Amino acid sequence: MPTYMDVHSGFVGVSAEDFQAAHEADLAIQDEEGARYERAWLDPETGTAFCLITGPSREAVLRVHERAGHPADELYELAVEV
Amino acid sequence: MPTYMDVHSGFVGVSAEDFQAAHEADLAIQDEEGARYERAWLDPETGTAFCLITGPSREAVLRVHERAGHPADELYELAVEV
Repeated sequence: MPTYMDVHSGFVGVSAEDFQAAHEADLAIQDEEGARYERAWLDPETGTAFCLITGPSREAVLRVHERAGHPADELYELAVEV
Repeated sequence: MPTYMDVHSGFVGVSAEDFQAAHEADLAIQDEEGARYERAWLDPETGTAFCLITGPSREAVLRVHERAGHPADELYELAVEV
């Protein structure tokens, strides 16, 4: 299955607890879309978040975030990993 | 030590072999700067690369990429990880 990185903006000042809650909302939905949200990171100063995901398609991965209420701004398919 | 994500653009069509070579150039330098480049990913279609790094400071992490000949476009300090 392809690996993806998505990038979100607009999370300035979000707390670790709220970020964890947002991530758990993804985890609760991901099985229905066949996706797996592996890790997520937040820079609260710039409000930028990154999620590393595997999933069957771009659409499935994006749908998880949309359904959880925090659509991604950008999504990249990571064909190469080192 | 803080964790960072850097984002590079301009790697359109770069091969897995060339990306690996660029990453190895970082690995060869990182000890001198006290940094550790953990993982790196590339989307060759958009030319976007991401590196996950731990290091003593933004400056040290950026210096590794500069010395290796591929300075980062953006660097984020990831205060929160889930």
